[in-house]
Amino acid sequence: EEGAGPETIRPLVVPLHAADLADLLERLTKDERLSVVHALGEELDSDVFAYLDDTVQETITDALPNSVLSTFVQDLDSDDVVDFLEDMDEEDQKEILSFVPAEDRALYEQALSYPEYTAGRLMRRETVTIPEFWTVGQTIDFMRDSDGEGGSDLPDDFYNIIVVSPNHKPVGLVQLSKLLRTKRIVPVSAIMETDPKLIPVDLDQEDAAFLFRQYGLVEAPVIDESGRLVGVLTIDDIVDVMDEEHEDDMLKLGGVSEDDFYSDFLKTTRLRFSWLLVNLGTAIVASLVIALFETALSKVVALAVLMPIVASMGGNAGTQTLTVAVRALATNELTTRNALRILTKEVLVGSANGILFAIIMGIVAWLWFSDPVLGGVIATAMILNLMIAGLSGVLIPLAIEKIGQDPAIASTVFLTTITDVVGFFVFLGLASVVLM
Amino acid sequence: EEGAGPETIRPLVVPLHAADLADLLERLTKDERLSVVHALGEELDSDVFAYLDDTVQETITDALPNSVLSTFVQDLDSDDVVDFLEDMDEEDQKEILSFVPAEDRALYEQALSYPEYTAGRLMRRETVTIPEFWTVGQTIDFMRDSDGEGGSDLPDDFYNIIVVSPNHKPVGLVQLSKLLRTKRIVPVSAIMETDPKLIPVDLDQEDAAFLFRQYGLVEAPVIDESGRLVGVLTIDDIVDVMDEEHEDDMLKLGGVSEDDFYSDFLKTTRLRFSWLLVNLGTAIVASLVIALFETALSKVVALAVLMPIVASMGGNAGTQTLTVAVRALATNELTTRNALRILTKEVLVGSANGILFAIIMGIVAWLWFSDPVLGGVIATAMILNLMIAGLSGVLIPLAIEKIGQDPAIASTVFLTTITDVVGFFVFLGLASVVLM
Repeated sequence: EEGAGPETIRPLVVPLHAADLADLLERLTKDERLSVVHALGEELDSDVFAYLDDTVQETITDALPNSVLSTFVQDLDSDDVVDFLEDMDEEDQKEILSFVPAEDRALYEQALSYPEYTAGRLMRRETVTIPEFWTVGQTIDFMRDSDGEGGSDLPDDFYNIIVVSPNHKPVGLVQLSKLLRTKRIVPVSAIMETDPKLIPVDLDQEDAAFLFRQYGLVEAPVIDESGRLVGVLTIDDIVDVMDEEHEDDMLKLGGVSEDDFYSDFLKTTRLRFSWLLVNLGTAIVASLVIALFETALSKVVALAVLMPIVASMGGNAGTQTLTVAVRALATNELTTRNALRILTKEVLVGSANGILFAIIMGIVAWLWFSDPVLGGVIATAMILNLMIAGLSGVLIPLAIEKIGQDPAIASTVFLTTITDVVGFFVFLGLASVVLM
Repeated sequence: EEGAGPETIRPLVVPLHAADLADLLERLTKDERLSVVHALGEELDSDVFAYLDDTVQETITDALPNSVLSTFVQDLDSDDVVDFLEDMDEEDQKEILSFVPAEDRALYEQALSYPEYTAGRLMRRETVTIPEFWTVGQTIDFMRDSDGEGGSDLPDDFYNIIVVSPNHKPVGLVQLSKLLRTKRIVPVSAIMETDPKLIPVDLDQEDAAFLFRQYGLVEAPVIDESGRLVGVLTIDDIVDVMDEEHEDDMLKLGGVSEDDFYSDFLKTTRLRFSWLLVNLGTAIVASLVIALFETALSKVVALAVLMPIVASMGGNAGTQTLTVAVRALATNELTTRNALRILTKEVLVGSANGILFAIIMGIVAWLWFSDPVLGGVIATAMILNLMIAGLSGVLIPLAIEKIGQDPAIASTVFLTTITDVVGFFVFLGLASVVLM
């Protein structure tokens, strides 16, 4: 396929949906990707950029002149433009925007001025608004007119009409499905949903996603500090946010700082290195604890054989608790109000499983090394480590959240450090006292 | 708050949105929960059940007679009824449905007959359909009429009207926002989106969610085997599915088989036990590997001190790869087509980080135990274990997916078994050869 020319590529790729073309581009190597983009030329659907992974998008935008990129910008919806521009450096942003008509440019510049990860960055700026005193008939006539000669002022698709006060504050929402089934003479105020959920423009995108999920919203008006309507958040943007947030939680729990699936080998190595370095530090700490008991280890080699079991069981039990706690924090189900109850439960669960595995492992160690005292030592260490694991699994993410950080990011490394240190210390310490 | 009577509770709780009341009920203890439910009596908003966690819902439905539960069923939308009933045992389902009017009952029974986790279970059965030859005007008149005296046949809210052929196959979708801005005389066939994405009724909910995300859908017609329209999937149900799937992936990677946040202490202990038992088995396997080298360990106690570092670094590097791979499988980004490329990259990343940490840890071990050979041994083991970790991190989830299982569920335990066994075996084996 090395030699496939533009005439071969174009007819295969042009009929694809933008989302599918984006997937295709993501799966190609960098060179193949650029041949497809060049083969398409101006036929490249701008919407593709709304679906592309950021790393992949960068390889394409880096290869195209800013004058070409600016033509894509002019085809995109305002929320997708912001998404397209926000990852570029400021110089490129400026140059691309310099090709764009002045009024649009001001719009995009304002959108980019909102902090990243807020509703302001995500929202669509085109809104459909009507005054409160209109009737259903007036509203429908207005919509038919605004789609006339002057080109469509209305967004491509929307689900509600926003009823605004004279000073442009949202006072209600009219569902299109309700508008359509209502007689022309009825005033919109009679069918509008009053007291709609409003999203402050500086609200964190994660909190906005929470509101959408909590109340089953598909669209919500966004307001500025003075309560005036500035845009609309729609469910498709929120679905992307949910996806990102989830990816984030999952990757961070796995010790991956950002999605590196499409990053090249060098960048991936660099991204993963720092986390592994932290882990090396904690592993050395655990080894220092082991080194405290060199005498015991050199006399009873069974201790070296069994000690990883105590640490591993603590790490796994703690990870179970941690995972449930991080998830519950992300969904606002774990709060300071019920923290004590959850903590108590997790310590109880840890103790109960600790006792069960103490019995199992105590017997295994006794039979394996024909030493009932060794069985007793590992049993005791097991109970203690699993209790501490349950305790740490709740307390660590709560503490990280309390200081304003993402509990997913460093929880795992703290937890396993604690369960390793406690596991080795209790098991080897007790053995030194009892067996020597 | 023990003594708060119904008169105190009711005015506080009645004004809450169903989603917020559900949250409140989730946060209360079982007894408090039931006092709130009893205080509300018939004023309890049925929609609450659409938002409640399954475990919490069970504590409530167990405490109420089926005759009362059947009144809730009659207030809910058809998709929420299915959600409400599906977790109950068949006997309760039957009894509750026996209180429901016969025509509704048949509807619910059919919905429950679709396999769990398919589009058929999730869809709303009420659809809004029109024939292809109608005009915009006819459509609007039809909608105004169907909302008349006879009660509303139309769903509460919807975003598209489905255009169907005479044999009830969907041939197009008309966006309400487009319908509203079009003149009455225009035929719907002129403004409808032809070739809409259709969801087969037996499609797995995860695949349905993928289609919604991929194409930014808010609503999609569901069809049976013969292509006839049987229902509609809406984005709010899909958001719930995405949430569930996310939770599932994350919990499984953490060794938690199901969300046990609201489960009591005993059930949680039982759920977590089986996974820990598997982990104990693998930890014992790793210990058996260590036991092979008892002679070396009793002579060189530094080996016992250092060996957990090799295993831990392998486990962490492997978990990084595994997390990225499981995520990429879930989003259909990792496929058999690009598997080889990703595998090569991950082995390279593992080797590169392996070399870096071999240098760091080689020097640390050399200085710590004043033994350059020991440094060389741990360096070699580190490189090998991190390469194997990268390899296993991709191959294990791919293999589990290949045999039709969820790659999140058992990947972690397989991976750490491999990195533990390889880590201990290479490090201790090499040391036995070189240092003895």
